[in-house]
Amino acid sequence: MSERICGEIPRPTLSRLPAYLNYLKARRAEGARSISAAQIARDLKLTEIQVRKDLAFLSSGRPRVGREVEELVDCISRQLTGRAGAVLVGAGRLGQALLFYEGFRAYGLEILAAFDSREELVGREFNGKRVFSAEEISRVTRELGAAIGILAVPERAAQWAADQLVAGGVRGIFNFAPVHLEACEGVVLHNEDLAASMALLTRAIPAP
Amino acid sequence: MSERICGEIPRPTLSRLPAYLNYLKARRAEGARSISAAQIARDLKLTEIQVRKDLAFLSSGRPRVGREVEELVDCISRQLTGRAGAVLVGAGRLGQALLFYEGFRAYGLEILAAFDSREELVGREFNGKRVFSAEEISRVTRELGAAIGILAVPERAAQWAADQLVAGGVRGIFNFAPVHLEACEGVVLHNEDLAASMALLTRAIPAP
Repeated sequence: MSERICGEIPRPTLSRLPAYLNYLKARRAEGARSISAAQIARDLKLTEIQVRKDLAFLSSGRPRVGREVEELVDCISRQLTGRAGAVLVGAGRLGQALLFYEGFRAYGLEILAAFDSREELVGREFNGKRVFSAEEISRVTRELGAAIGILAVPERAAQWAADQLVAGGVRGIFNFAPVHLEACEGVVLHNEDLAASMALLTRAIPAP
Repeated sequence: MSERICGEIPRPTLSRLPAYLNYLKARRAEGARSISAAQIARDLKLTEIQVRKDLAFLSSGRPRVGREVEELVDCISRQLTGRAGAVLVGAGRLGQALLFYEGFRAYGLEILAAFDSREELVGREFNGKRVFSAEEISRVTRELGAAIGILAVPERAAQWAADQLVAGGVRGIFNFAPVHLEACEGVVLHNEDLAASMALLTRAIPAP
């Protein structure tokens, strides 16, 4: 197989990669072997120009009329997959759902441990991952060498938990608490405000 | 209080509103009464021009040097809050976490009922919301007049569940399954691929 050079990909393109990946996997499952930028654009509601530009970042630049679905799935997967260990703060309902979520494995992500301040949860295991006391966030995170911290805690605890994770050496934080966090220099923050996202969806729906 | 005209807000601005809201609430909690676009821009890592343009959509156009924090929180909240009923397909761990999630209320969102194909879950209640059989999605959704459907099901069930929701009259679907969905005309689709988002975060973190 020819070597593919996947160079530096701009963030907007990167953010579209998961949608491309899921779409191409669906087409592959239907038996498609090649696909045109025009068809991808139609089905993903993007412009053809956008799709061509995005795909150009994924190839060595060979001009192709049709794209091999398998090659694209392969290249995009490689762009998104990396070995990264994560720790989770908050082992409540959302936290437990994340501990059992099988989808992370497909991207080489794994939650290594969880933390909670509630005594009744400390020492328990969910899907083989142990819950430590919240007082141990920074120590255990550092020992595990976790790169990512996930916050599934109430708003009032989020800043403190983020600070502990940063003290433990994480370089990225994925925050589910609907609260603005002050993060450290050098730590990438992603806010996932589910309720706000759903409110935006509600706002976007056409009036009946 | 003077009447504020909040006109048609472009989607990119809309998508930033939740971050503005959480940030301004944090500033308000610290006692801030007014705030400059420059400070908002600094703390949210946006350009000042972007912030000014976004805020202009929220006001009646009165030129102001400093913005009243309370007014901004109020106006943004009103933009994001609406009365919308939702139904949830999938009452597993993620579904249950969503049923207990208190954050939806702040935006006037409420999950009215849930569905699952597993017999042991049908008839149970979580946070006062009943789980119906998956066979009843379209009937119950229509009876409840739910505008939004939330998918917290495995990939293999997602398309079928989406079709049932559309048959039940939803106008928007919030999908957690990491799979491409073919949605109906007139139905707004939002994909929330948590694993992919986390993979993108992992990719963004600076090398150690």
